[in-house]
Amino acid sequence: MLGRPRRIALLAEGSFTPADAKTAVGVLRWRPEEVVAVIDSTRAGRTTQDCVGVGGAVPVVGSLDQAAQFEADTLLLGIAPQGGLLPASWRTVVAEALMRGWDVLAGLHQFLSDDPELATLAQSRGCRIIDVRRPPAARPIAARRTSQLDAMVVLTVGSDCNVGKMTTALALERELSSRDLRVRFVATGQTGIFIADGGAALDAIPADFVAGVVEELVLEASRDADIVLVEGQGSIHHPAYSGVSLSLLHGACPDAMVLCHQAGRTHIRIADAAPSPRIKALSELIRDHERAAGWLQPSRVLGLALNTLTLDETEAKRAVEHAGHLTGLPVTDPVRYGTDAVANAIVWRMEERRRRAAAS
Amino acid sequence: MLGRPRRIALLAEGSFTPADAKTAVGVLRWRPEEVVAVIDSTRAGRTTQDCVGVGGAVPVVGSLDQAAQFEADTLLLGIAPQGGLLPASWRTVVAEALMRGWDVLAGLHQFLSDDPELATLAQSRGCRIIDVRRPPAARPIAARRTSQLDAMVVLTVGSDCNVGKMTTALALERELSSRDLRVRFVATGQTGIFIADGGAALDAIPADFVAGVVEELVLEASRDADIVLVEGQGSIHHPAYSGVSLSLLHGACPDAMVLCHQAGRTHIRIADAAPSPRIKALSELIRDHERAAGWLQPSRVLGLALNTLTLDETEAKRAVEHAGHLTGLPVTDPVRYGTDAVANAIVWRMEERRRRAAAS
Repeated sequence: MLGRPRRIALLAEGSFTPADAKTAVGVLRWRPEEVVAVIDSTRAGRTTQDCVGVGGAVPVVGSLDQAAQFEADTLLLGIAPQGGLLPASWRTVVAEALMRGWDVLAGLHQFLSDDPELATLAQSRGCRIIDVRRPPAARPIAARRTSQLDAMVVLTVGSDCNVGKMTTALALERELSSRDLRVRFVATGQTGIFIADGGAALDAIPADFVAGVVEELVLEASRDADIVLVEGQGSIHHPAYSGVSLSLLHGACPDAMVLCHQAGRTHIRIADAAPSPRIKALSELIRDHERAAGWLQPSRVLGLALNTLTLDETEAKRAVEHAGHLTGLPVTDPVRYGTDAVANAIVWRMEERRRRAAAS
Repeated sequence: MLGRPRRIALLAEGSFTPADAKTAVGVLRWRPEEVVAVIDSTRAGRTTQDCVGVGGAVPVVGSLDQAAQFEADTLLLGIAPQGGLLPASWRTVVAEALMRGWDVLAGLHQFLSDDPELATLAQSRGCRIIDVRRPPAARPIAARRTSQLDAMVVLTVGSDCNVGKMTTALALERELSSRDLRVRFVATGQTGIFIADGGAALDAIPADFVAGVVEELVLEASRDADIVLVEGQGSIHHPAYSGVSLSLLHGACPDAMVLCHQAGRTHIRIADAAPSPRIKALSELIRDHERAAGWLQPSRVLGLALNTLTLDETEAKRAVEHAGHLTGLPVTDPVRYGTDAVANAIVWRMEERRRRAAAS
């Protein structure tokens, strides 16, 4: 990961649950071979599989010392606190890791490598602090350069944060790659960057350049791809993050979208006691996304990814069927049922595009 | 301006036209009493009134030396190059100003006070570099806290960049203040900050926090106001800036919007040769803005500001009348005809809100 094969200790102190440790769970799901331990003293002694349903027998341990027994050589901060600042209690753990000569991988808005004390420590021990959320130096201005690519661009969009946009894009990448298509995944958030070894954390980029950065990432990925799968961020309906989502939508100019939603979630999750907006009906979410995309270029939602994490097997099946009836689109839970039906819809659309291009 | 009364030389070398020197023209229109000269060697000897239609007898001069003869004590960078970097040729002028002990006011994405050479120079001469585009240190997450204020929030929105969103908000502030209402203007871009002595340049803020910063600015302004006029940015239809515009819309949660458009402009202005999106019909622009606002809270476009800069008197009158027929809304060019009709619509709406609040 990020330059060399690693033996990672994932820090998720007090928060190693599917809801709170988004980054840790993502890395465990998609790059488990590089994780040797998870640090959460409140769950020490269990396995990651037991705590969050992925990662198999990877142990949860109580301290950095214990993670060191598994020959970790990298500390990865596995949660993304709202606001992106380093919790005070974690600072000590980061310093300890650097003292041991481990690299530290972080996805916070607060850049650890700008901290003089931590930076000096890293330098003296010959290890690195990698802040994946640091914006790229380039400041491109978007200009709809992604609107007429040969490659088909697919963006995952969502009803809220943390509903499965990254997971859906990665699951589709895996499924479509298995069909002998040239597929590229474009990471747009910190967890995706850890998994894909590239991309950009859009939410930390000065707002003027977000769409431009997306455009460059998609253009680059499209050069040798049949399909470019772009990781979505936030939601155009979220009070705090709608701008990031729209920049992404207009920077990527996707041919198609996959709408992600968590079954049972009724309200958008926001910071504090302010009244949370209700999540709209699926048909309205589809309509709003197609309209907003269409301000620049027509795009269609081709399928739905329904996160059924909190449901039992019977409820999950029913929820997926129900969403299919409501929308008339292929629906799946990528984690539970794979992405076959949605991948089919993408391939059909890709073939249709090609026929049209050949005919014109 | 920004801390003390100033004698400003506006730098607009080679670009002192209404289209290119947006910041210079804005400052001249709204704070002419603090400008002593404009520097543009290609137009030296003329007056600002002659070049850009505002500022009266303020002279255009050929160099910093000549501006010094008018006892300038501040250099203000009067254009905003795309991408926000300091043109190489300007660096010398900035250094010269600092050598003379002048403050330098800048609104670039590239922060001059981060330049070690310029910073050292300023320090040694006892003057200041003020980068108004530097993001605020706070990183607030928006949560729809502006959605139920007693004050009425009005946002100017636009069909494109540089069509008159700031000018319209400032003109409305002046008109409504003259009617004995408590009115506050919220600046959201560099020119607005120079004029209003406050605010934040949204386009330079890490994307996650744009809506949150808007929310705080509007909340603060609303405390002692009947009406809060928020300066719009970009356009939800602009490929590069739509995200900033939507963050602003959802951070401000305006009760009402005023749509700004330049008469005769048919295409959105974007960076390079990519096909420019056509600007939609006025009715579609209104509909799209009301829909996007409505994702969080209902809002209506109450009137239009039509920038008729490039038209003669007859054409301008006709364009304003035509827009009125097309939309059924009050339309004006704030610069040419004042804002009376649109201000009336805002006041009626404010009174209606109050009646409703009193009745409930």
